[in-house]
Amino acid sequence: MSEFLPSWTDTPTKKAIQDFVDSVTDEGGPDYVPPSERIAVFDNDGTLWCEKPMYIQLDYLLRRLAAQAEGDPSLRSKQPWQAAREKDFTWLGGAVTKHYQGDDGDLKILLGGILTLSEGQAVERVEADARRFIENERHPVLDLPYRDCIYQPMLELLRYLEANGFINYIVSGGGRDFMRGFAQDLYGIPRERVIGSTVAYRYVEGEDGGTIEQRAELDVIDDGPGKPVQIWNLIGRRPILAAGNSNGDLPMLAFAGGPSLPALCLLVVHDDADREFDYIAGAEKVISTAQAQGWTTISMRDDWSRVFS
Amino acid sequence: MSEFLPSWTDTPTKKAIQDFVDSVTDEGGPDYVPPSERIAVFDNDGTLWCEKPMYIQLDYLLRRLAAQAEGDPSLRSKQPWQAAREKDFTWLGGAVTKHYQGDDGDLKILLGGILTLSEGQAVERVEADARRFIENERHPVLDLPYRDCIYQPMLELLRYLEANGFINYIVSGGGRDFMRGFAQDLYGIPRERVIGSTVAYRYVEGEDGGTIEQRAELDVIDDGPGKPVQIWNLIGRRPILAAGNSNGDLPMLAFAGGPSLPALCLLVVHDDADREFDYIAGAEKVISTAQAQGWTTISMRDDWSRVFS
Repeated sequence: MSEFLPSWTDTPTKKAIQDFVDSVTDEGGPDYVPPSERIAVFDNDGTLWCEKPMYIQLDYLLRRLAAQAEGDPSLRSKQPWQAAREKDFTWLGGAVTKHYQGDDGDLKILLGGILTLSEGQAVERVEADARRFIENERHPVLDLPYRDCIYQPMLELLRYLEANGFINYIVSGGGRDFMRGFAQDLYGIPRERVIGSTVAYRYVEGEDGGTIEQRAELDVIDDGPGKPVQIWNLIGRRPILAAGNSNGDLPMLAFAGGPSLPALCLLVVHDDADREFDYIAGAEKVISTAQAQGWTTISMRDDWSRVFS
Repeated sequence: MSEFLPSWTDTPTKKAIQDFVDSVTDEGGPDYVPPSERIAVFDNDGTLWCEKPMYIQLDYLLRRLAAQAEGDPSLRSKQPWQAAREKDFTWLGGAVTKHYQGDDGDLKILLGGILTLSEGQAVERVEADARRFIENERHPVLDLPYRDCIYQPMLELLRYLEANGFINYIVSGGGRDFMRGFAQDLYGIPRERVIGSTVAYRYVEGEDGGTIEQRAELDVIDDGPGKPVQIWNLIGRRPILAAGNSNGDLPMLAFAGGPSLPALCLLVVHDDADREFDYIAGAEKVISTAQAQGWTTISMRDDWSRVFS
């Protein structure tokens, strides 16, 4: 395999990935796993693409909230519209960091505003908006279009796993309908394998088969213990490979393998201030658990020869 | 194709199926659909296997309720334990028939009792119990083990569709975890393509990756308008073939195809008192809609040369 993970440096991390894939595909070996059970699950934000200075989907949603506040002045002194309109990233970023440190208060206020954007939106329109946003907008710090903010080494890992009979899923705290807008195009992951947070739907009868509309009500928060729950709801199999980067991925990483299957748990560590970002906020617990459990950590700085394509 | 749907008689129904499959697989034709979008959805009870004199899963659950009442005499004068213990099929069957006619009262009482069975059950145990039940128990009227109560012509249809690049899903009002116990074995449908009603889960941390347990709380009722909603939640594509038999399948049948895809809607009509059952209760509305919309009806009596294998 001349093109074996070309953007990965020759470190123990790359070796651990190769050894694991070799062992589960070795038909006579003790760790052989049949292809139908070669389930690989990937967090999205911070694992497959950038999540700093804020989630890419959050940028999308804040622009929509700001547009709402332009049309309705009464919203301008209320959170989250005020922060969205004034680009108050301290308040916004803090909401997420606090969440991963156990304080949900500001995140709930933020979600409450975001939910109002969903009411009555046809799913096809949500996806088309997401696709257009990712195609056309740029990252606020890195000199890149959003569509190029995906990690080239992780793309190579997805293709390498596929070539070895794995079935890749996204399992993200991000919005499922948002990600479905570009998952096939950006990651080569088909829409039925995109698992994420979602609002509730309603089915509206009508001509041409009716429509599925979003409602202003959370249905699933695919984060923390919600990740193994959603993996069982949608796949009904334990993953044998799980990749994440934040405390919200800890239960998904712990769930991999289980009593009867081998597992490779991969933790992306953001330690590359030159090429991406250097932070551990929101990942403190998963980093210490990875050390205690012997999970495979991916140092962006040391294990990747290239970050973006 | 010498074995083309051998248990189907040469009627317009068989011809409609063949014509549809030919048209969506004809790469140069106007109705061509690429394989990734050849989604076929099948109701289970009354569509893939028998649902009379009561749902097979209901027999399973009633035995467990009766066993509960044996252990706790205070339950014996309460519904649904009383009906379960006394095998009061009039009350039990009426709960379901009334539901499809718009009255949910008794069904809610029945479900309330059933939910108590779920609390704290590990999903693997639920599946193993279901598998054992289907393997070992027999239909109360037909002289058949439950595992042989599946319709041979529908099995042939599943295989015929697969051979033509279709991806088959079960989309049933029945319990998802129950069906996962035997869907691969009986229908050749893998567990990740079983969509059904389900209780909520909890993820319990622990050794060996923790466990997924059921809770005594409904999460999804996959019936009526819930079927297109769950199809979008889990697949995110409109089916191009949908098969059902009761009013609860109407929205799923109407949802197939939609504005941009062709569709074949199949309605199994139970009109065969000699070989199976003859009833329309709970299917009144979908039968009249099928006639109005020109959907393809499957007469068990006329279109199937053999019902069971």
